[in-house]
Parts: sequence; C-alpha cells; structure tokens
Amino acid sequence: MASPKQVLALIISLAITIPAMAAQDGHPKLILTQDGVTKIRATLGTAPLFDATVARVRQEVDAEVAAGIDTPTPKDYSGGYTHERHKRNFVVMQQAGALYQILDDEKYARYVRDMLFAYEAMYKTLPLHPKTRSYARGKLFWQCLNDANWLVYTSQAYDAIYNYLSADERHTLERNLFRPFADHISIANPRFFNRIHNHSTWGNAAVGMIGLVMGDDELVQRALYGLPAELHGVDLGAKDNDGGFIFDQNGKAGFLANMDAPFSPDGYYTEGPYYQRYAMYPFLVFAQALHNVKPEMDIFQHRDGLLLKAVDALLQLTDADGEFFPLNDGQKGMSDQARELVTAVDIAFLVGGGDPRLLGVAERQNQVLLDDAGIAVATAIRDGEAQPYQKTSINLSDGSDGTEGGVAILRYADEALTLVYKYSAQGLSHGHYDKLSFSLYERGHEVLQDYGLVRFVNIEQKGGGNYLPQNSTWAKQSIAHNTLVLNETSHFQGKYEIGSRHHSELYFYDDQNDDVQVVSATDANAYPGALLHRTMALIRTAHADKPFVLDLFRVEADQQHRYDLPFYFNGQVLDTSFATRAPAELSPIGSKHGYQHLYLEASGEPQGENARFSWLTNRQFFTLTSVTKTDDQLVFSRIGANDPQFNLRRDAGFMIRRQDAQDTLFVTTIEPHGSYSPVSELAIDARSNIARLQVLQDSKDYTVVAVHFTHGPPGVFALSNSNSSKTAQHQLRIDDKALSWIGPFAFMSGD
Amino acid sequence: MASPKQVLALIISLAITIPAMAAQDGHPKLILTQDGVTKIRATLGTAPLFDATVARVRQEVDAEVAAGIDTPTPKDYSGGYTHERHKRNFVVMQQAGALYQILDDEKYARYVRDMLFAYEAMYKTLPLHPKTRSYARGKLFWQCLNDANWLVYTSQAYDAIYNYLSADERHTLERNLFRPFADHISIANPRFFNRIHNHSTWGNAAVGMIGLVMGDDELVQRALYGLPAELHGVDLGAKDNDGGFIFDQNGKAGFLANMDAPFSPDGYYTEGPYYQRYAMYPFLVFAQALHNVKPEMDIFQHRDGLLLKAVDALLQLTDADGEFFPLNDGQKGMSDQARELVTAVDIAFLVGGGDPRLLGVAERQNQVLLDDAGIAVATAIRDGEAQPYQKTSINLSDGSDGTEGGVAILRYADEALTLVYKYSAQGLSHGHYDKLSFSLYERGHEVLQDYGLVRFVNIEQKGGGNYLPQNSTWAKQSIAHNTLVLNETSHFQGKYEIGSRHHSELYFYDDQNDDVQVVSATDANAYPGALLHRTMALIRTAHADKPFVLDLFRVEADQQHRYDLPFYFNGQVLDTSFATRAPAELSPIGSKHGYQHLYLEASGEPQGENARFSWLTNRQFFTLTSVTKTDDQLVFSRIGANDPQFNLRRDAGFMIRRQDAQDTLFVTTIEPHGSYSPVSELAIDARSNIARLQVLQDSKDYTVVAVHFTHGPPGVFALSNSNSSKTAQHQLRIDDKALSWIGPFAFMSGD
Repeated sequence: MASPKQVLALIISLAITIPAMAAQDGHPKLILTQDGVTKIRATLGTAPLFDATVARVRQEVDAEVAAGIDTPTPKDYSGGYTHERHKRNFVVMQQAGALYQILDDEKYARYVRDMLFAYEAMYKTLPLHPKTRSYARGKLFWQCLNDANWLVYTSQAYDAIYNYLSADERHTLERNLFRPFADHISIANPRFFNRIHNHSTWGNAAVGMIGLVMGDDELVQRALYGLPAELHGVDLGAKDNDGGFIFDQNGKAGFLANMDAPFSPDGYYTEGPYYQRYAMYPFLVFAQALHNVKPEMDIFQHRDGLLLKAVDALLQLTDADGEFFPLNDGQKGMSDQARELVTAVDIAFLVGGGDPRLLGVAERQNQVLLDDAGIAVATAIRDGEAQPYQKTSINLSDGSDGTEGGVAILRYADEALTLVYKYSAQGLSHGHYDKLSFSLYERGHEVLQDYGLVRFVNIEQKGGGNYLPQNSTWAKQSIAHNTLVLNETSHFQGKYEIGSRHHSELYFYDDQNDDVQVVSATDANAYPGALLHRTMALIRTAHADKPFVLDLFRVEADQQHRYDLPFYFNGQVLDTSFATRAPAELSPIGSKHGYQHLYLEASGEPQGENARFSWLTNRQFFTLTSVTKTDDQLVFSRIGANDPQFNLRRDAGFMIRRQDAQDTLFVTTIEPHGSYSPVSELAIDARSNIARLQVLQDSKDYTVVAVHFTHGPPGVFALSNSNSSKTAQHQLRIDDKALSWIGPFAFMSGD
Repeated sequence: MASPKQVLALIISLAITIPAMAAQDGHPKLILTQDGVTKIRATLGTAPLFDATVARVRQEVDAEVAAGIDTPTPKDYSGGYTHERHKRNFVVMQQAGALYQILDDEKYARYVRDMLFAYEAMYKTLPLHPKTRSYARGKLFWQCLNDANWLVYTSQAYDAIYNYLSADERHTLERNLFRPFADHISIANPRFFNRIHNHSTWGNAAVGMIGLVMGDDELVQRALYGLPAELHGVDLGAKDNDGGFIFDQNGKAGFLANMDAPFSPDGYYTEGPYYQRYAMYPFLVFAQALHNVKPEMDIFQHRDGLLLKAVDALLQLTDADGEFFPLNDGQKGMSDQARELVTAVDIAFLVGGGDPRLLGVAERQNQVLLDDAGIAVATAIRDGEAQPYQKTSINLSDGSDGTEGGVAILRYADEALTLVYKYSAQGLSHGHYDKLSFSLYERGHEVLQDYGLVRFVNIEQKGGGNYLPQNSTWAKQSIAHNTLVLNETSHFQGKYEIGSRHHSELYFYDDQNDDVQVVSATDANAYPGALLHRTMALIRTAHADKPFVLDLFRVEADQQHRYDLPFYFNGQVLDTSFATRAPAELSPIGSKHGYQHLYLEASGEPQGENARFSWLTNRQFFTLTSVTKTDDQLVFSRIGANDPQFNLRRDAGFMIRRQDAQDTLFVTTIEPHGSYSPVSELAIDARSNIARLQVLQDSKDYTVVAVHFTHGPPGVFALSNSNSSKTAQHQLRIDDKALSWIGPFAFMSGD
C-alpha cells in the first residue's frame, strides 16, 4: 500500500490536468451565500416559517452557548456521551454560523471560533478512536463516517465565520485541523473514502466542502474523483463489516461516481430509502456548494437532473404518514420530517424551478434551512404557493442504467391501500435477500410488514446502537419477507457474492387503469433452475367493499422443492376457514436461514380448495384467501426464537407450506373490509366479500383465475405468462367460454 | 314459580300502597320536553354544535328513511344481520322522533309510526329468540338485555310522536307491543329484571320509561322497586352465565336498589368503568325522565347527588386520551367519546348546575343530545363557557356504604404518569381476582397494562361477539394482573363465592403533596393466613429525570409460599442487569389459574442485590429496578399458550419468582426516563437515574428503603406498617442515623 505522502504527490500531479477552479470572491459561499444573506436580512420578520425556525434555533444555540463548550476526549460508541456530544457540537456550530450571518451578532461567530480552536488543540495529537469495531476508524468518532459528518457540517460553520477570523487564525485551523482531518478520512482510509456507498458520499462531500471553503482545489478534485485506485493497493474483492464489497468493481470512486452507480435514472438509490435519506444530505449540500462555487459544473443537470429526481423518488417512497418504506436495512419511523429531508426539500425547491408540491412537504416539516434555500421556501409558503404533495403509483427502476429491476408502488390517491413491490438488485451491503417481496399499507399503518432492520440506532444498550447479529440471521434472510422461499434456504443461499451479481426483471408494469393496476416481475437467479414469477394487482370493483390485492406467484422448476410463502400480518387473528392446532410446546421451525428465529405457533390443513383467515388491525378487518392444495400446511408463526436478548419484535406471520411440488402456483387475495370501533362497538362488514378463488387455467403460457364475490358475478383475471407485449392479442377457451384480450393481462369484471 | 298472571295481580295490589303519580300533561315529556322543544326551535341556527349534530343526524336518518323499513325475523347473535338491524332501528327511531319535534317535519313522525307498527305486527306472534345461550332470552334479540335497550330508546321515540298518533293507534301499540314487551323483560324474566346488575338497570329503565310515556303507574312502580322477590321463586344462590349471583342477597330489586347497591358514595360502580359507562345511559335517561315527570322524587338528589358524582367518577377513570381504565371486564379503547358519555355529560350539565368542566368534555365529543340537555350544552359552549376537564389524583371508595376498598388514581396535572391502584371489592360477575393490582400509563399509553377482557364485542366470528373462554381461564385470574400470586393459585382460589364475600382495606391514601403521593392497602382474605400489604408512591425529585413509581409489596404469612410478582410491560426489552437464557422450546409456565396461558420466554438469576431491566415503548425509556434475593428467578413471559384460536394478545410480561419464603418484601421502582425519536434518531437519557435500591429496615412495624440515584444523595422512604394514623410520631435509628416523622410514611429526599 502506498504511503499517504506518495498518494498526495500523485493526486497533486493529477489535479493539474483538470481545469482550474473559477476564482471565487468572498464568504459565505457554500450553502449560505452573500446574496442569500442580503435577501434573508431584508426578509426577516415577514416570512413566518423562517422567523419561527430562527427563533427555535436561536433558543437552542443560546442554551448551548450558555452551557459552554465541551470537546471531550473521544471514547464511546453511538449513544455514549462523547459520541453524542461531538455530534451535537457540529450541528450547533453549523447553526451558530448561520445565526452569525443572519443576525450579524458576533457572539455566534465567537462561539464557533472558540469551539474550532478547542478542536484544533485536541486534534493535533489525537490518536485513532479507541473503539475498534469499524473497518475505518475515525478520530472524534469510532468510525470515519461520523468524522465525515462532522466535517460536512463544520465546513459550513467555518465558511460562515471565515471573514470573522484573521488570516493567521484561518491558517492555524486549516493546517492543524481541517487539512489533516480531510486527509485522515480520505488518504489514510481509502477503504472508507473510495467506495460506492453512502459512507463514501459523506467522506467525499466532507473533503470537497472544506476544500471549497479553503479554496483548495486539490481537495475538491479528490472529493469529486476519489483517490486514484491504483494507489490504495487494496483488494477489490474486500468486504466491510456489513458484508458488502468495499470497492466498485470498475475502480471508480469519488462524489461523481457515487452519483452514478447507486442511483437509477429514476432517482432510486439502490440501498433503499432509509439510506437514500441519509445520503441525500451530503449529496445535496455538496451539490449546492458546487452549484454556488463552481456553477460551470452544472451539477444539478448531471444525469438529466438526477439529484432532483432522487428527492422526488424519496418522497414517493413514503406511506401516508410520510414514513419511508423500510426496504433493505431501514429503521421504521424514519420519515420525511427528518432533517435530511428538510435539506432535500428546500434545496430541491431552490434549484429545481420552485415545484409548489415541495412546499406542501415543507409546510408539514414546519421548519426550513437557515440559508438561501430556506428563505426561498419560507417566502413562497408565505405567498400562498404551497400545494399538497400528491403521491401516485410509480415504478422506479434500479441500477445505474435502470436495467436492474426496480421497486413498484401501487396505490390510490387517498393512499387507503398501498402496495410496495420489490424486484430490485441486491442493494449493496444493506440489501436483503427478498426478491419479489412486497408489503402492504392501509394509510400509514402496516398491514403486511417488511420487518426492516434489527438495530436500535443510537441506543447504546443495544449493541452500541449498531447492527445486531439478528440483522444478518433474521432481517436479511428471505423468510423474513413476504416472498417465496424454497427448501428453507434464502435466495442466493443468503450469499452476498452471488446476490450482488443478479437482479430480478420487470415483466410489465401498468398503472393506466386506476381500477386494475398491475406489476409483474420474474427472478431466474434466486434459485438456480427455478423461475419465480410474481404478478400483483390492486383491484377495485363494485363487488368488494374496498380495493383488494390479487397475488399470483408462479414457479417453473426443474425439480421438486419445498415451498414456503409467508405473510407477516399485523393484528389479531379473528377466524380461519381451517381448524388450527397449537403444539404443546413452541419450537423453532428450522435451524438456519432465519427459520431458527420463527416459532410454529399453530397449524392446520386446508379444508376445501381455499384457505382463508381474517384478522383485525388498526380498527379495520382484513381477509387473506388463498387457493390451496390438499397437502399444503397452513402455519401461524411468531418471530422471536433463539433471541434471549429480545433483539427481535414478537410479530406474527402466516405461511402456506407446500411440499414436494415442482411447477406450482400460489393465488392469494388480501382484502381490507369494513371497520371496527371500540367506542361505538360497531363491527361493520366484518366478513370477507370474496367467497372463493378458483384457478381456471394454469400453463406455461397462461394463468387465469376467477375471483368469486359473495354478491355479484365473479371477476376473471387472465395473465399471459410468456408474452408481455402491450399489443399482443390473446384468445383462450375456458369451459366453452371464449376469452380474448390485448396485452399481458386482463381483468374481466363480469358485468 | 308463580305464573306471570299471579305476579301481575300482586304487583297491582302493591302499587296501590304507593302515592299516585302526579298527573302529567302533554308530550313529549321524557328527555325532550315541550319547554325544551320551544327553546330548541328558537335557538336553531345559532348554536353551532347543536346545529352540526342536527345536520349529521338528519343525514343519517334521511338515508334510513330512503332505504326503507326493515324489521327482519330475529335469528342472529351480536354482530349478525338481524341483531345489528334491530339495534340500528331503535337508535334511528329515537333520532327520528327528536327530529320530528325539532324540525316539525311530519316525515319523521310517519317513519317512526310505520316502524312501530311493523314491530307491532311482528311482536304479536313472536316466539323467543331462537339462540339459546342467554340465561334470559329476549324476543327481538338473543338476550333480554338487548330487548331492554330497544325499549329504552323506543319509549323516547314513542313519546316524541305520541301526539301525532291517534288514540286508536296508541291503544293498539300499547296493547300489542309495549305492554307485552315490558312484561316479557320483567315478569317473564325475573332472573333478568330483579338483579343488582347493569342488565337489570336497563330492564328497569325500559319498563319505567315506557310506563311514564303510557302514563302506566304500575309499570313505573315495577321499574322503581322490581318484582316482589317472594314471587319469582328463584334460588337466591343462582348464578348467571358470567358466574355472578343473579339476585341481591338482601332481596332488593328495581331501579332504586340498583342505584344503591353497586355504587359507592363516591360514585364508583363496583363492576368497573366499562360497565359503569354502559349502565350510565339507562341510569341517566330514566332519571331525567323521572326528574321531568315526577319531579317530587328529586331523583338527582338521591344519595347526596349520587348520579352526578358517578358521572364525575367516570370521567376521572380515564387516561389522558379519555379511554377508560379497563378494570375488571373492560374493553380497551372505550372512551369518553362513547354515546353513553355524551348522554351522561349533557344531562349532568343540565341538571347538575352547569359545571363548565363538562363543556370541555362535550367540546371534544363534538356532538350533543338532540334534547333539552343538548341545547343547554351547545348554547353554553357557544357562549364561551367551556373549561378544560382537569383530572386529579383521586381515591374512590367501593361498596354501597364506601367501606369495601376502592380504586385510587395517582397522577400529575399533565397526566404524564398515571398510576391506577385497585384494592376494591369483587365487582360482581364482571370482577377479576386482582386484589392490590395496578396499571401504569404514560399519557394515553399503557406502560404496565391491565389485560382487560377477552371478548371482541359484536365481532360475530369471535364466539358470537360474546365472552370467550379465556376471559375466565386468563383475564379474570390473578396472574393476568400486576399483583402478587401465591403458589400459582388465584386469589380466593379463583372462586366467585369466596371473592364476593371479601374486599381489600385501605391503609391510607395521601395526595396532599404533589411530589410524593401515596396509596397503601391490605388484603387479608385473598390467601387465608397471608396478609398482603402493598404501598405505591408516585415520587418526583430533582435527582430523577421524571417522576417514578415506588412499589412496596409486603407479605406476612403463617407458612412458606411460592411468590410470583408479574409486571405486564408494553414495548421492547433493551437490556437486563442479569444474563437471560431462552429455553430451546417454549412451554407453559403452569397448568391452571391462568399459568397455562403463559409461556416462559427467557429467564435468569439476579446478579447482586438488585435486578434491573429497561424497555422502550411509545418512544420513551423505562427501567424497572427491584430488590432481589439470591434464589429469586427472573422470568420473561409471553401470553398465548393453549390458545389455538388466537383469542389472546401475544403480550409480554416480566415476573419475579420467589420460592419458599414466608414473610417477604418486594421493593420495586418503575421509572420513565428520556426519549427516543426514530426521526432524529436521538436517544436522550437512555439510562436509568436509579442506581440502586436498598432495604434499610423491614419489620412488622416499619419498612424503610433507600433509593440511590446516579447523581445526588439517596432518597429514603419510610413506612409504618402497623399504624396508619396521620398524627402518629415515629422514630427509628438506622445505621446510627435518626429518622423521625409524623404520619404513616415519609420520603426524605436527602438534600
């Protein structure tokens, strides 16, 4: 491995070949600009949302100023005192810098200066953080990632008080603090800095932003293009402690590479919305800084306006309460109220042409940035320009060129029912083995859940606030998701090396008819020799109380398998169409691939051609009806086996288990109906409107099913399994009745 | 058993001895009066809450009028069509009657008349309801209770259109419908009508109200005083299908007896708030009718204004969201928004001197009665008289003379922490074996829960919407509550005959000092030979982040027992001060008295003198710390064993198990601290502020414990075990330190 000195020499030599940066005059210039400050000062007192934010931040910062500066010797993991204190410090410094510019009150500049010098004094001799768990240890924090967070915020604070400082003070800070800090998280940690990963985006932005403030073009180039790959000398196949590859297999790195690889052209970030939210902050603040300091780069036009599309994609990836779908590793409850989204929404409004729907989100956030973007949003809201952010059905491709599967969301404008269907690529190290899985929401309530991650972020008692072992042994496993599992083995055998080489394929997506919205995708690689094909429809008819989900999961296999199709429902079981037996003692269903964490709580056998069970959640009734075979086992499970420290929630599941089948088909409806109020004690429409599901035909070419309602004629859903062309004509005879349609599917409602 | 005819003859002979009813002119006169109608018509369009209620009810009734009348042949249990239709009918008739009076629109009178005649046509030949589960079968419904509901509402409808009907029509209705209807639910069903029970209150009110409308004094007397006990000839020891005694052991019956026996002088209803809410409707509407038609009875002054005190007690028995504490059989979620509470609050405002705090509740209810009471509330709200209903700490006695224990609620004005402590009598057939149990709320969120009932009211799939077997085998058992269980056996061996003979005793209650509120009670009968003494305090000090609960549970026993002290916490375990082991398979902890429904999920042994565990619920941290003995077992349990039909929620419990102890003491703190936000991902004060609990002394006379905080000096709680006098002086020496105080307890905060 090359020494830091050698790396530095090479970087400097490379930088010469890149056009010199346009000279910039004056500070601040990153996020807050001189023009912005002028505008803010002129507007103060007239834009309520901005004024309220200033008042709140001022109160917080004044309290910190009064409490005095504390830069403790680093020693804790997340959740511990030193970690949380340093985290708080960088946020407060950034806010104090903004207040200095806005209010022109020297006390805030002094506070930032004093804290910077406290850090300068400490950093000169600071060793690596004593905690050793990270693959890239920081100095202030246990991982370089948090050090990068610090520098992203602190560069803004430095920019804000730049002119307040003497040239000598700046020189001291840059020589003893900023430059070595930037070098530590880049040159000294290429495994952190040169990845295609949200970690590196933070690293890149940190180095680039301090470079822009310092006017240090070498740092800016390092940020944009990464360290030269040939220099860091580390194995391209190396993996981090989340199990992901450290380096992009093409050897690309830096901020621009991170804008390319993990984002699809639709703005979907392959790690999923929780990490997209996390990454948006450095993406957008560094982009805004580049937009201000290096306008010639036209960074917001890069990849056809990618960053703005990403903000939109992120807002679409929320439930009715604004909470992100917890795809891959995602903490539930994280929402569009997060500070990263305040940044994203405000900046997107400022640089994206003033989309009034973003103002609707900003209104609910009830705070704005204390900068050029924030004042633009606050004045537009004041001027009554806000419109609601109306979510729609949407199909977001995955993969940098948009060909590696995707995520589809089917919903109605009122968000009464939202289906999230995932047929994406692996999602880097935070990906789950959950091909063709789905989750279902009734407004903001999870009806069929995606488990999310096993981590209590920043709660130190729970493994230092970091990922817990069950994140790998349960949350990532296929059986933890609402998708098909063969032979009690996860997709790709649960191996990242295999999973990250493959992705599912869209068969078709059609949201043209609000009453019958369909997404269909296949996966040929999760289990070699088995082609999985899942088609999910959101159907609204006059014969069912509310829209329902139709799920066709078809497998063509070259040998016999054992199949498990689970549905993780929230709520209380009301009744079942089959008798249930509970074992005398609860045992884990299996021993690996997540099955070791599932208790078998009750089971039964289908009575007749359908199995049905109903449950109550969030004061609404739901019924699942499924076409079953005589030998199927119907199993109620409970999460929590082999978990003596209670890292897992004790949530319920229902599972259809099919033995020794080769090609097979699962047909299921999930139907919300009626409502229950514990106040009026009225149970309205507590019974399903679906009397029976019937497979009329199932072959390599066609699958046709009838949905019989309790009232009215049946609906027939016909699917072409081998031709997804929108113009192909199909003709079938079923029971002497002719069926004909155009395109990959048809739903004939019978009346 | 006497024939109905004989009974009738005797009743009539008895009625002569009672002063004749004052003659009443005109209709309506029950709930809506002629004066009220005049006032309402004059006020229409000026009192927004009344107008809004009229508009909403009008929309509902108009829809029913348009849909046409349906009086189907009775056949279903609760939740089934015929049950729900007849239930809807009586509500709509009552509303249509009110609309007729308010809007003077004949279409509503016609609708009521036509429906009454539809019932008249059917009732003449109607046999008993075909479902046989009830001890007192109705005709329109499976139980007389629901028939009584029908008549309470329908009398109001009849009163409203009385003058619209011809004398012939009235005669027909009274002869063929109302009179036989009233006889069926009284004379034909003495086991229903003559009880001290909410069922009978409905029956009494139904018969009395139709009697008042018809001007039939015999019915009114029957309602007020019941059927003569010597005539129904049924065993006083007979029990109903909830397991309760059918008849009052003193042979009293009727509305006035029901106002006496089950209510304490404080207005607490011995069955608990869920049934108090249910019973309040007939109590208050019949009382208001008596108040209007027989003002000389001064019914609202009866027992020192009992009914008004009962409304206040009921409102105090709610959490911060207005939901009733689910003491005894109580369905969670039932709240002060229920229609019975709209009635209670409006009537109490009208007849109780216009308490402006009731307007605060009415505002949140956002609807009023369409009668004299409703217009009074709506105009007062319009005139800005509403004040918030501020809840307080309160001690409510149980028993008709207030000497049979009680229920104490300790809380702060912000309702941030509410402790509900139950040391009451059995609570009739809906009582649970839960002496000295408690539950704890953080605002409207249950932190340590009372399980409530096992019933899905009106959800037909779940056992016809009726009580499920697990209500007896789990919910009523002692181990289902946060209280002490000896030898895996419920209090009173779980036998109603024994439990209903006993009650706990208040030792003292003191809410004078907001910072240290204490309730203490004993029970000598739950386990013969063992005196249970539990003292619970809500303590606020400068050394703990938030107020916490101190729980001292002391036992003096004449022999060794096995003790179990459970805490049913909601939320996710974060950490434990002891190592936990999970068994390979989950087994029920015991075989009877509720233990058969509890899985042992994990267990451990104390390490050191305290055991501690922390959990996270509702975005707040909680820590339980308890003084333990070396041989104690610490057990995490899960509800749900032996429940193949999922009638029970899979909720968590923690239990301290102590073996082979005679006299013993459990000292526990339950402490809320800090907060967690999944949006900011900030974990604030995730660690307990209580470092250690220490027993300084424990004897027959005194128990003294020290609470050591992580910062600051310890607090010392001293309790006199044998003298609850408020003026007694106590002196103790502990470790050479003198402790002296006056009264049954002291908390010395150490600084």
